[in-house]
Amino acid sequence: MPTFEHETLGQRVLFGTGAAAANLAVEVSRLGAQRVMVIASAFQAEMARAVAADIEVLLWHHDVVMHVPIEAAEKARSAAARHGIDLLVCIGGGSTTGLAKAIAMTSSLPIIAVPTTYAGSEATNVWGLTEASRKTTGVDASVLPATIIYDAALTLSLPVGMSVASGLNGMAHCIDSMWAPRADPINAALATEGIRALSQGLPLIATDPHSVEGREQALYGAYLSAVAFASAGSGLHHKTCHVLGGTYNLPHAQTHAAVLPYVLAFNGAHAPDAAARIAAAFGTADALTGLQELRKRLDAPKALSDYGFTAEGIAEAVPLILPAVPASNPRPVTAQDLTRLLQAALNGEDPAILLDR
Amino acid sequence: MPTFEHETLGQRVLFGTGAAAANLAVEVSRLGAQRVMVIASAFQAEMARAVAADIEVLLWHHDVVMHVPIEAAEKARSAAARHGIDLLVCIGGGSTTGLAKAIAMTSSLPIIAVPTTYAGSEATNVWGLTEASRKTTGVDASVLPATIIYDAALTLSLPVGMSVASGLNGMAHCIDSMWAPRADPINAALATEGIRALSQGLPLIATDPHSVEGREQALYGAYLSAVAFASAGSGLHHKTCHVLGGTYNLPHAQTHAAVLPYVLAFNGAHAPDAAARIAAAFGTADALTGLQELRKRLDAPKALSDYGFTAEGIAEAVPLILPAVPASNPRPVTAQDLTRLLQAALNGEDPAILLDR
Repeated sequence: MPTFEHETLGQRVLFGTGAAAANLAVEVSRLGAQRVMVIASAFQAEMARAVAADIEVLLWHHDVVMHVPIEAAEKARSAAARHGIDLLVCIGGGSTTGLAKAIAMTSSLPIIAVPTTYAGSEATNVWGLTEASRKTTGVDASVLPATIIYDAALTLSLPVGMSVASGLNGMAHCIDSMWAPRADPINAALATEGIRALSQGLPLIATDPHSVEGREQALYGAYLSAVAFASAGSGLHHKTCHVLGGTYNLPHAQTHAAVLPYVLAFNGAHAPDAAARIAAAFGTADALTGLQELRKRLDAPKALSDYGFTAEGIAEAVPLILPAVPASNPRPVTAQDLTRLLQAALNGEDPAILLDR
Repeated sequence: MPTFEHETLGQRVLFGTGAAAANLAVEVSRLGAQRVMVIASAFQAEMARAVAADIEVLLWHHDVVMHVPIEAAEKARSAAARHGIDLLVCIGGGSTTGLAKAIAMTSSLPIIAVPTTYAGSEATNVWGLTEASRKTTGVDASVLPATIIYDAALTLSLPVGMSVASGLNGMAHCIDSMWAPRADPINAALATEGIRALSQGLPLIATDPHSVEGREQALYGAYLSAVAFASAGSGLHHKTCHVLGGTYNLPHAQTHAAVLPYVLAFNGAHAPDAAARIAAAFGTADALTGLQELRKRLDAPKALSDYGFTAEGIAEAVPLILPAVPASNPRPVTAQDLTRLLQAALNGEDPAILLDR
């Protein structure tokens, strides 16, 4: 039992398939809001109108841009101030939620988030803004949505490939949170539940993208993965993927999906409690088997070489990753270890070669 | 995947054995408090002084009475107002935390709770007051402690018998939360973790009351049980025990400990997800076996006849319990079912007779 410090973020979570419009009306009324601004991309405007059908909307805002450029944030902030808005409702993915957070940062307006992807931003107090193509992130209590309304029906149009990649990204949040710097048993318990839900939901989606049960489990699992990850921070897996993504411009979700089994194989034996929880969540005798069986069923990305990474990159990446490895990592990490890990991930080798037996 | 509404209560949880004084100093400073009132019973004054050794205390309040009589609450409220208190620190069990909540109710002062028992009140937004020997309870966001400081060293003096009974009461919170009116998978995941922790910690305490690991696991499990129970509400188990306790004045913890296996046996097969979670938490093939093995190791209360309940009470209790059974109960409950359940609990029979096979 370690010493730990855990911050539980207070939020209401309403979960009901097909119930977003009704739940939104209840929440707007409960919060006593009179002047509501709804944020949704133009692309999702129709879906958003259906979700907002039962509330009075004072201002629609469709100017949503990826990574929340500061100019887009300023425009939205001015619009909110000009209209005397008293409640923000964001309906969409991470960038839409991010724009609502950018407004809340400077106005402290409450947010009701209605997520339509597995991004998870709705469950965190982390904001992100992009200025002159540099992304800044920070933590601020005022950007945490007061209420999340989850409706799996809104995620049915998320393509299978993107759902699987995004779901495995959530899986990586869960697994990495077991040994991240602020890992604690509460995060581990929520992450375990997230792994269970994602491992049940994703195969159902891969078989049938309209599986409501699959969508519900995946959405629920993605929520838990965000809660656990935001609380625990970035572990070896995320530090590794951050360098690979940032330096070699590898695709985010695929990189996470490909690297995860190697980090699990490397750390597993040194984190027996985590490994036992992960295995139990997969319902398999050991953690790596559970992850690999799931990845097989999902036809998940295997080799980083398929996504533009090369052997030449390894020697360059290792010294960038090494200093970022958290002191909390359960197994000491050397340059040689990282080289072997990246080689294996590059070629899609059997992760078992990284086990410390 | 059910439709659900879950309210996560925002709190900081600091967990560290022997670290209460240091953690308290950090939190008082983080909250920027200048005028601190510390509430602790006269009985625990010495322990409280040690915990508060590193902070400046403006006002000590030792007038703590069981069940928080309104007169005691009014006195404490006046004292806080008179001294211009800006932070309440309560060090003690449920009644001490309850008194701090009574002050916060009317003043909205923040609370730092340092629990010394497994009562769990520190993790809920529920207050209780007693007026003219009638207890009133309610829910109010302002009574939720901002920070909980858990220090297992402060629980070492809790006698084994009381620790076991109180721990099994926590176990009942966890198990009953699986089918209580506001049961949801988030509560179930936290309750599962609570069962795991309590089932590991309690036998260690029974063997050695000074087992720090046992105390840590039990304290952590009691915290989770309170979170899950406060969120999920009272299920069949609590409704039954409430009538038995209220009408026949049976001892609280022992009644819970004795009744629990019968409710689990009765509901288990009708709540397969809950039963699987409970079994996994115990590390046994089935839930009831796990609970019974633990109860055996702890020499837990078995028959209600040992605590003053009689066969005559059954016919009287059944019509009191029946209308209170939540609609959420996974197995329909008839008067005959309740009669059989109470008969079995009265005599400490094998709970397996209640299984629906």
